Amino acid sequence: MVIVTKPDATSAQIDAIVKRIEGVGLEAQISTGEQRTVIGVIGDKTLLGDIPMESMSGVEKTMAITAPYKLACRQFRADPTVIAVNGTKIGGRKLAVMAGPCAVESTEQIVTIAQQVKKAGAEFIRGGAFKPRTGPYSFQGFGEEALKMLVAAKQETGLGIVTEVMTPNEVELVGEHTDIFQLGTRNMTNFYLLREVGRSKKPVILKRGMSATFEEWLLAAEYILSEGNPDVILCERGIRTFETHTRNTLDLNAVPVIHHLSHLPIVVDPSHGTGIRGLVSDMTKASVAAGADGLLLEVHHDPDNSMTGDGAQSLFPDQFQKLMQELKPIAIAVGREI
Amino acid sequence: MVIVTKPDATSAQIDAIVKRIEGVGLEAQISTGEQRTVIGVIGDKTLLGDIPMESMSGVEKTMAITAPYKLACRQFRADPTVIAVNGTKIGGRKLAVMAGPCAVESTEQIVTIAQQVKKAGAEFIRGGAFKPRTGPYSFQGFGEEALKMLVAAKQETGLGIVTEVMTPNEVELVGEHTDIFQLGTRNMTNFYLLREVGRSKKPVILKRGMSATFEEWLLAAEYILSEGNPDVILCERGIRTFETHTRNTLDLNAVPVIHHLSHLPIVVDPSHGTGIRGLVSDMTKASVAAGADGLLLEVHHDPDNSMTGDGAQSLFPDQFQKLMQELKPIAIAVGREI
Amino acid sequence: MVIVTKPDATSAQIDAIVKRIEGVGLEAQISTGEQRTVIGVIGDKTLLGDIPMESMSGVEKTMAITAPYKLACRQFRADPTVIAVNGTKIGGRKLAVMAGPCAVESTEQIVTIAQQVKKAGAEFIRGGAFKPRTGPYSFQGFGEEALKMLVAAKQETGLGIVTEVMTPNEVELVGEHTDIFQLGTRNMTNFYLLREVGRSKKPVILKRGMSATFEEWLLAAEYILSEGNPDVILCERGIRTFETHTRNTLDLNAVPVIHHLSHLPIVVDPSHGTGIRGLVSDMTKASVAAGADGLLLEVHHDPDNSMTGDGAQSLFPDQFQKLMQELKPIAIAVGREI
Amino acid sequence: MVIVTKPDATSAQIDAIVKRIEGVGLEAQISTGEQRTVIGVIGDKTLLGDIPMESMSGVEKTMAITAPYKLACRQFRADPTVIAVNGTKIGGRKLAVMAGPCAVESTEQIVTIAQQVKKAGAEFIRGGAFKPRTGPYSFQGFGEEALKMLVAAKQETGLGIVTEVMTPNEVELVGEHTDIFQLGTRNMTNFYLLREVGRSKKPVILKRGMSATFEEWLLAAEYILSEGNPDVILCERGIRTFETHTRNTLDLNAVPVIHHLSHLPIVVDPSHGTGIRGLVSDMTKASVAAGADGLLLEVHHDPDNSMTGDGAQSLFPDQFQKLMQELKPIAIAVGREI
Repeated sequence: MVIVTKPDATSAQIDAIVKRIEGVGLEAQISTGEQRTVIGVIGDKTLLGDIPMESMSGVEKTMAITAPYKLACRQFRADPTVIAVNGTKIGGRKLAVMAGPCAVESTEQIVTIAQQVKKAGAEFIRGGAFKPRTGPYSFQGFGEEALKMLVAAKQETGLGIVTEVMTPNEVELVGEHTDIFQLGTRNMTNFYLLREVGRSKKPVILKRGMSATFEEWLLAAEYILSEGNPDVILCERGIRTFETHTRNTLDLNAVPVIHHLSHLPIVVDPSHGTGIRGLVSDMTKASVAAGADGLLLEVHHDPDNSMTGDGAQSLFPDQFQKLMQELKPIAIAVGREI
Repeated sequence: MVIVTKPDATSAQIDAIVKRIEGVGLEAQISTGEQRTVIGVIGDKTLLGDIPMESMSGVEKTMAITAPYKLACRQFRADPTVIAVNGTKIGGRKLAVMAGPCAVESTEQIVTIAQQVKKAGAEFIRGGAFKPRTGPYSFQGFGEEALKMLVAAKQETGLGIVTEVMTPNEVELVGEHTDIFQLGTRNMTNFYLLREVGRSKKPVILKRGMSATFEEWLLAAEYILSEGNPDVILCERGIRTFETHTRNTLDLNAVPVIHHLSHLPIVVDPSHGTGIRGLVSDMTKASVAAGADGLLLEVHHDPDNSMTGDGAQSLFPDQFQKLMQELKPIAIAVGREI
Repeated sequence: MVIVTKPDATSAQIDAIVKRIEGVGLEAQISTGEQRTVIGVIGDKTLLGDIPMESMSGVEKTMAITAPYKLACRQFRADPTVIAVNGTKIGGRKLAVMAGPCAVESTEQIVTIAQQVKKAGAEFIRGGAFKPRTGPYSFQGFGEEALKMLVAAKQETGLGIVTEVMTPNEVELVGEHTDIFQLGTRNMTNFYLLREVGRSKKPVILKRGMSATFEEWLLAAEYILSEGNPDVILCERGIRTFETHTRNTLDLNAVPVIHHLSHLPIVVDPSHGTGIRGLVSDMTKASVAAGADGLLLEVHHDPDNSMTGDGAQSLFPDQFQKLMQELKPIAIAVGREI
Repeated sequence: MVIVTKPDATSAQIDAIVKRIEGVGLEAQISTGEQRTVIGVIGDKTLLGDIPMESMSGVEKTMAITAPYKLACRQFRADPTVIAVNGTKIGGRKLAVMAGPCAVESTEQIVTIAQQVKKAGAEFIRGGAFKPRTGPYSFQGFGEEALKMLVAAKQETGLGIVTEVMTPNEVELVGEHTDIFQLGTRNMTNFYLLREVGRSKKPVILKRGMSATFEEWLLAAEYILSEGNPDVILCERGIRTFETHTRNTLDLNAVPVIHHLSHLPIVVDPSHGTGIRGLVSDMTKASVAAGADGLLLEVHHDPDNSMTGDGAQSLFPDQFQKLMQELKPIAIAVGREI
């Protein structure tokens, strides 16, 4: 940590800062400039614990040198995290493809789609049982009923299940049915929920908050990791920008940046990331080329009659199948397979 | 609702859209332009329920005409909502002033500050017992112990209590001690928590999500209102922008806009809205001039030794007292008192 | 400046960095942490000139300690800049009020409005002769004709003229008619234009770029100052945020922040800052309470027939007159007059 | 266009709106809802010209149905625009690769780099002669001298020249040397400059404004097109977001969206789009997979001694050569070649 003082900081204030640093066993290196003093803190910064140096009199700003997330950090683990689930691996050479409708609407619907996406090469069926909705009057999902429908689809196809959990109290229930928990963009800072899935044994897909920085996202992952669950999969799903033509702005920079900062796998959701069916294929190809470890894709055989507005971003099953074929040479070109 | 079709929409697609509208008893008014057809939906839009017109084939975009929040809407209630709590009123002529430290750190601390802010004219003591923190290793508040310290401060001073609740499971516990629930910016889309405080009988301060639009904010309020709790107080606390000099960008437009869109009271938190002690007084004056119904202010008698970094934005008690005096003529100038 | 090296920086790379610093006569103070080396640069940083340390091998990031704008900086001048123009002063105790239509549409229009705003207490008539428009097919202003209409309004009323200049080639022409140049939000980074008005003798209102940080804004001012023109007036006119209900988001934090960082006066434009007539009065009051040195307000006697969409944000003359009265006690409360 | 009235709009106001629409020969279709009236404008909207309906009394909002850019619009031209320049084509099957340093620093530097990038397969040498810089004290380029150095590099290698022009007055000078004009992100709304290059005969690369929407970008292109120059190449170079880890956020959604909205070619600049050398290769691959028509890449053989901070994002020549090889199978996979 580097501490920069105000131009008018008194020597008594600077002494108090140094005393606090040395008081916990750290070293303070002082550089006295013309206007300001810069104090470098040398040693294991965790010794400072929660002491908020930025609140002290005379401090103008503090600047972190090392990342505040430890377990999620690339330095903590040299090798990429590879997660084994339902007989497949996420984070390895083979891309993990998770596909299905926005919401689980009926057993027939979810089984039909599961069969179609399996045929095209997906390894996971995704579908919402509990749906976060901006307003209270929108369809909120069929809940436990929908979880059972997902299990029926799994029994029929062997695909692993990915579904969202929204509140700590339902982690146990959802965990009884799903293979992978999904945490949505609106829950990236639901810290109790992060801790609760951190205490479970199942992998967690952590979607990026829609205005979150990479650091905040990795700190959210750190909540899960710090409870003992090492199996976190980050998911880029588009950020909010000024653009209103697309639903969100898929930020593919996230893929190489996360690979640089962390050992955790990262998958991409081009369906939510664009919100427009006609853009999904191109952005999926770009995701694979950028180095994504997997894909979350919305597929629906009858979007005209879907129960959420997300039908507008769902691929038809034949589009999905075609896309899976087109991805193959790109995956190979970047040293992966699909 | 207005539905705009794609330039290449077929007449079969347009027929299907009209059929769906008429199928629920609404009227479809069709305007055929040169390139596109525009379909107006006339009647009580709630009859459309969850049917997502934007997913239908041939639809390019839909545009809402009426607000999706009903109970929070100005049209629902002509008069401003006035909330009676702990012998005072929020939303009336007199501004509600809520002041105190970021976190409750000890009985001595909170009682001392409560006495000081009461003397200066505040009617509520605020302080965090449960603290949402970006990372898992930061001080998360003293929890139930801190709730008891707040009660001690109330007993000593008579001030009402404002404190945050972070998860549905703790609504009962926090509700036993506090007068007003606070929901933080990171929980504006924690829909289970919104519903749970909606089922309580206590007023709720709902902070704006840090990248939320006004509509999303009012929809979050709608979650609380729709469960039967009419006592929602909105709180502008700064939004995230590109600016890094300040912690957040206090958005005072929110005050007249919310008064225009809704009957709910709105208070302003200039401490979080700026993050810098030296800016708080000016922005508090601006908040009152803009028409705010109340203020949330951080006050700490010893920020050098506070347990969170928010000390940097806390006023000293004497600054707070001076500010309260300076606010008086401004309040009067806009037809209020303090 | 503080330079932070990458964890894998070699000692040869660190030596090269130190050598470059010392090569221009500066001192390098090295703090060796566990993972990274932090190098403080002590001395007059301008000696480093354009040498971009952040490009050097082994550098992870650099952090500025002092502001990159020198002449605009509070440290450069202890007293606030006060600008004398057309018999009045901007930046002193009395607020400067500049009012008028978005565009100059006819002599009759601009003279009528000038008379009305003068009666209400304004000291400057504002109106666009050259209009920046997002698309090429919109009304772009009457140009030189409109400048003459402004002069007619000045002759009639004695009000000073504020009008926009858009390109270096027109600085001379506009300067022959106007008292104050206005540079619009889309031209904040038109560096040739900044330099050209910097070489003129007339005061310049520099509107904030719609997504500019405070530092970028002050650097734009520095372009003007560095050419020898000390009379720069900053103007907050709203920034772009995710909110679509308002045209822009008026950022009143700018007022105390700029007063803290710089000696230059800052005025506020609540008309563009909100885009909605019904919000202008409340936000103007808030601007004054926040400490603004002046106001830019759109006033139009016949917005139904205005030639730009900005009529929607124009006050009617009687609204403007009422507002001017209501501002008085607020101005007094913050130690100003109007 | 659809016009939505306020809930309290009077019938006189609605009549005035209809009268204005019909007055220019358009048809007004009125849908009367329970709270608001919706008025559809049928016919050639350009007949409305500059009449700003949104300024009229009683109007709450207006919504465009057709795009405000006409010449840039996909509907205007069914086939993609292909631009022939210096013996190559931009917008066709073969990707256009433009590479070189941020700034032209010497004849030796630019010739060396030109030879290297040509060997690797680039068809254009890029380099700044006139450099837009945030502050006045930074290196602003060698100007005309640098243009001559670029010509020397062209003579040596046959590569076409891409270089920036910053102000209308220099369009002629730059045009004498360059093959393609580049307009930078800070000049996307420099409307006089747009018009001036619109009157030239050379192709123009128009970089996206750093916070511009797609519509604003295409309207800027429309300025150029409307002056008679059909050869506009859009360039995505990253937008500003909250993320500070990267310099900008490369927005690859731009590629399929622009292909959907417009017939103009779009190239991508992953160097500015990320600002970090280690991210450039992955994001270049993603750009090609997304369907980009070309690439702008910074390449520098000695970034440690470059004269701008952009050295940190420059590829070394051998990295560039390797990347060009790796792009081949991806280009083929999406039906292109490189």
